[in-house]
Amino acid sequence: MRLRLTPREDSYYELFAYSANNLVTASRLLVEIISDGSDREALAEKMRACEHAGDERTHAIMNRLNESFITPFDREDIYRLAANLDDVMDYMEAAADMIVLYQVEHLPKEVVRQVEVLERAAELTAEAMPRLRSMKNLTEYWIEINRLENQADQVYRRLLARLFGGEYDALTVMKMKDIVEQLEMAADGFEHVANTIESIAVKES
Amino acid sequence: MRLRLTPREDSYYELFAYSANNLVTASRLLVEIISDGSDREALAEKMRACEHAGDERTHAIMNRLNESFITPFDREDIYRLAANLDDVMDYMEAAADMIVLYQVEHLPKEVVRQVEVLERAAELTAEAMPRLRSMKNLTEYWIEINRLENQADQVYRRLLARLFGGEYDALTVMKMKDIVEQLEMAADGFEHVANTIESIAVKES
Amino acid sequence: MRLRLTPREDSYYELFAYSANNLVTASRLLVEIISDGSDREALAEKMRACEHAGDERTHAIMNRLNESFITPFDREDIYRLAANLDDVMDYMEAAADMIVLYQVEHLPKEVVRQVEVLERAAELTAEAMPRLRSMKNLTEYWIEINRLENQADQVYRRLLARLFGGEYDALTVMKMKDIVEQLEMAADGFEHVANTIESIAVKES
Repeated sequence: MRLRLTPREDSYYELFAYSANNLVTASRLLVEIISDGSDREALAEKMRACEHAGDERTHAIMNRLNESFITPFDREDIYRLAANLDDVMDYMEAAADMIVLYQVEHLPKEVVRQVEVLERAAELTAEAMPRLRSMKNLTEYWIEINRLENQADQVYRRLLARLFGGEYDALTVMKMKDIVEQLEMAADGFEHVANTIESIAVKES
Repeated sequence: MRLRLTPREDSYYELFAYSANNLVTASRLLVEIISDGSDREALAEKMRACEHAGDERTHAIMNRLNESFITPFDREDIYRLAANLDDVMDYMEAAADMIVLYQVEHLPKEVVRQVEVLERAAELTAEAMPRLRSMKNLTEYWIEINRLENQADQVYRRLLARLFGGEYDALTVMKMKDIVEQLEMAADGFEHVANTIESIAVKES
Repeated sequence: MRLRLTPREDSYYELFAYSANNLVTASRLLVEIISDGSDREALAEKMRACEHAGDERTHAIMNRLNESFITPFDREDIYRLAANLDDVMDYMEAAADMIVLYQVEHLPKEVVRQVEVLERAAELTAEAMPRLRSMKNLTEYWIEINRLENQADQVYRRLLARLFGGEYDALTVMKMKDIVEQLEMAADGFEHVANTIESIAVKES
């Protein structure tokens, strides 16, 4: 027998909501970082702070999980959801860090599109989190995330074709490819979050 | 207590068989794509159709799993096997897509060997699937898959040495490396499928 | 009810201790391989032998796990710990193999620092393994591993900045990047081992 929604369990929801809102902040930092004339170093520093704050919540979820006998839904799903959210943060932080580290002056304009998709996916994920309590009205969320992920995929492949199109020298291609790969993994990561939530919702329905 | 082989569970076997046969189709499309003079765009389109059909079966397995109380073997193993088969499909589709996207004219001849190994691994996997019901005669299958994976590994490393040998310019190396890495991950993926099946068979024996 | 520390279970501890000690050996082989004037081919051969020996233990753990009803701690954690240790070995072996395969003459001096961190992490991991029986005094171990992983991360990012700094041609950058990425994944892998052990310890406490 599982008990639900006692105060103790509630805080899983709060921790997940925090992690998802943190991804919205991170995606907006990415939008700024890729804008011309931004202070990239300062923004990458803020991104690192974001990631550390996220790490603390992930750690809090894992500790709570290891200590609890009663969880609001399957332990393995809680673990997976926390790990999925954490992965997205890591990819976004790595992208920001590489942009500074590699001193890439000007990114192809398709990267703006990539980052916009991430921002939208982060917003949708943050909006969906409070609905985990009732497990209602989640269908639209994961359909939309899957649609966004397909869009991100199209943008990513066009980006690869452009990078290899002869416009850039090999070293620049390598640097940019590293960055856009991290952004693509972040987009995939949002889909993993949505898949985990779908899987939880189906079991609970 | 677990009940076995009721009609409801049977369809897991059918879904796995479908996924494995789909990998045979995909591997043969790869053989064609890397042949000189083939219509690569049309073949990559067929590959995408293959991948979509596979995705639907993976989704059907996951949904059934979330809704079922009784499963023919461990839930986690069913989940893992479905995910493993899906991963192989994704790697093969990505390789096909990159060959078209990067407009790589002529691939090194070792790639033919890589793809032949994938075709053989796909055939063995498809032949093994019906034996999941009885859990008999699976030993040879995974020994042979492990042997093939070692072979694939040798071919892959020779390919890397060749790519870096000075014959190609840096951009061409990057493109080809992306492609042969996907093929190598597909070969690894077949080993993951075999490991999961071995693990299921040991538990059931 | 779980029974503990019967002779049969003990051997999980022995197998884990073996795997961890094997990582110490492997890290020392890496130290030698990157030293000037070493016989790299012979050392890479020893590394392969190390990896095969490790594979056998991983396989023994998995088999025992599939056949056992009683385990000293959660099955999933045993599985994860064995897989985590195996991953670290694979990354170190791949790095050694690439150094030989790519015929990289002289690696940047930061690689020495990367490998020293791996050696220290391997030693700490091997020292921690016997403490799995009592689950005592593990806190320092994972704090120290996390500190080392942060250090490795700093070294890795400095290495990437250097590789892209214009000192090397594109093909050399690609080769070296492949190698330092494997070393970085090995460092991450030690953190995954420590996280799994932390998770086990929290449950058992």
